[in-house]
Amino acid sequence: MMSGDENPAAVPKPVEDVQGDARWISQHTRFVQECKDAEPDVLFIGDSMIQLMQQYDIWRELFSPLHALNFGIGGDTTCNVLWRLQNGELENISPKVVVLWVGTNNHEHTAEQVAGGVMAIAQFLATRLPKAKIIVLGLLPRGERPNLLREKNATVNSLLRSLLHCDHKNIELIAKKQITINSEYKYLPCSFILTINTN
Amino acid sequence: MMSGDENPAAVPKPVEDVQGDARWISQHTRFVQECKDAEPDVLFIGDSMIQLMQQYDIWRELFSPLHALNFGIGGDTTCNVLWRLQNGELENISPKVVVLWVGTNNHEHTAEQVAGGVMAIAQFLATRLPKAKIIVLGLLPRGERPNLLREKNATVNSLLRSLLHCDHKNIELIAKKQITINSEYKYLPCSFILTINTN
Repeated sequence: MMSGDENPAAVPKPVEDVQGDARWISQHTRFVQECKDAEPDVLFIGDSMIQLMQQYDIWRELFSPLHALNFGIGGDTTCNVLWRLQNGELENISPKVVVLWVGTNNHEHTAEQVAGGVMAIAQFLATRLPKAKIIVLGLLPRGERPNLLREKNATVNSLLRSLLHCDHKNIELIAKKQITINSEYKYLPCSFILTINTN
Repeated sequence: MMSGDENPAAVPKPVEDVQGDARWISQHTRFVQECKDAEPDVLFIGDSMIQLMQQYDIWRELFSPLHALNFGIGGDTTCNVLWRLQNGELENISPKVVVLWVGTNNHEHTAEQVAGGVMAIAQFLATRLPKAKIIVLGLLPRGERPNLLREKNATVNSLLRSLLHCDHKNIELIAKKQITINSEYKYLPCSFILTINTN
């Protein structure tokens, strides 16, 4: 596995405001503010899969009561999440559990680079929060039928499985090998993380 | 206002599958299938604002019981929605009400072009479904603070107001001049369309 310095998916990078509404940086600024106001036991960070969890009843029923913060931004890559974490989204907080779910938007990167990017974030989290449990969620399949992106995401998960097989006692991977997609082509992301336990 | 032939925002166009998972066309194919299976009284069509409505309780409580179909796809422009409607998403169905909400993703187009694109879709709907009520939702402001995209969307709404002031008895615009955004930087899109009446 290449080192962080050589891996473009492990380089922290903000999202460029190509559309002109400063949406991404506004969300980041809000998250940094939330770190000053809240004392979360659980931090969820990642892309739209994390962000959209808040729309499900299960978020309100099970995750909000855990004192959870949701730092998900749609479209984020490993680079963007790494940048956010290094620029204020861990200040003043000491979550017991961090759930990380990112990598499916890294279209410019190979599976090996994506896995390295996810690992770079997980290791950064483990270093900054040595007492926290870091839970890495494996990538979901893409598209309704078999396609190259599905294979790529499956490879990312395999690589993460191998990498985390070594000595990373505070970092755990949850990745299902087989995902069932219902007839409406929807997954329920929350079903992946019901095993979270803050004790 | 330029005619449809001259307006790039009124040219039907599918989304190019740059990421390789055929996601957009899969969703379109599912919608076409739903037209064969369902007899909706209300059809919602547009971009992510429509798509995400399904995540709110209010969808299940108020809109599902109206026999509503949701044909929202995140990121869609007026061109994409027009293409979908012209390629099967109106086959076999006779909704009494169609709710159209699109235009905020037309980054390549001017406000005048966007308004023309929305009008082209509304007029296509009115022609294909002469007995239906077409409800066009105005665009929401973009970004947390004042910016060019906010001004553009406000201009689109003004243009739509003028265009629909003329003789379009089956087409109605719902656009609030002032939108309040709460501290979590969220709007509740469903609040815009509680006035829908299928009678």
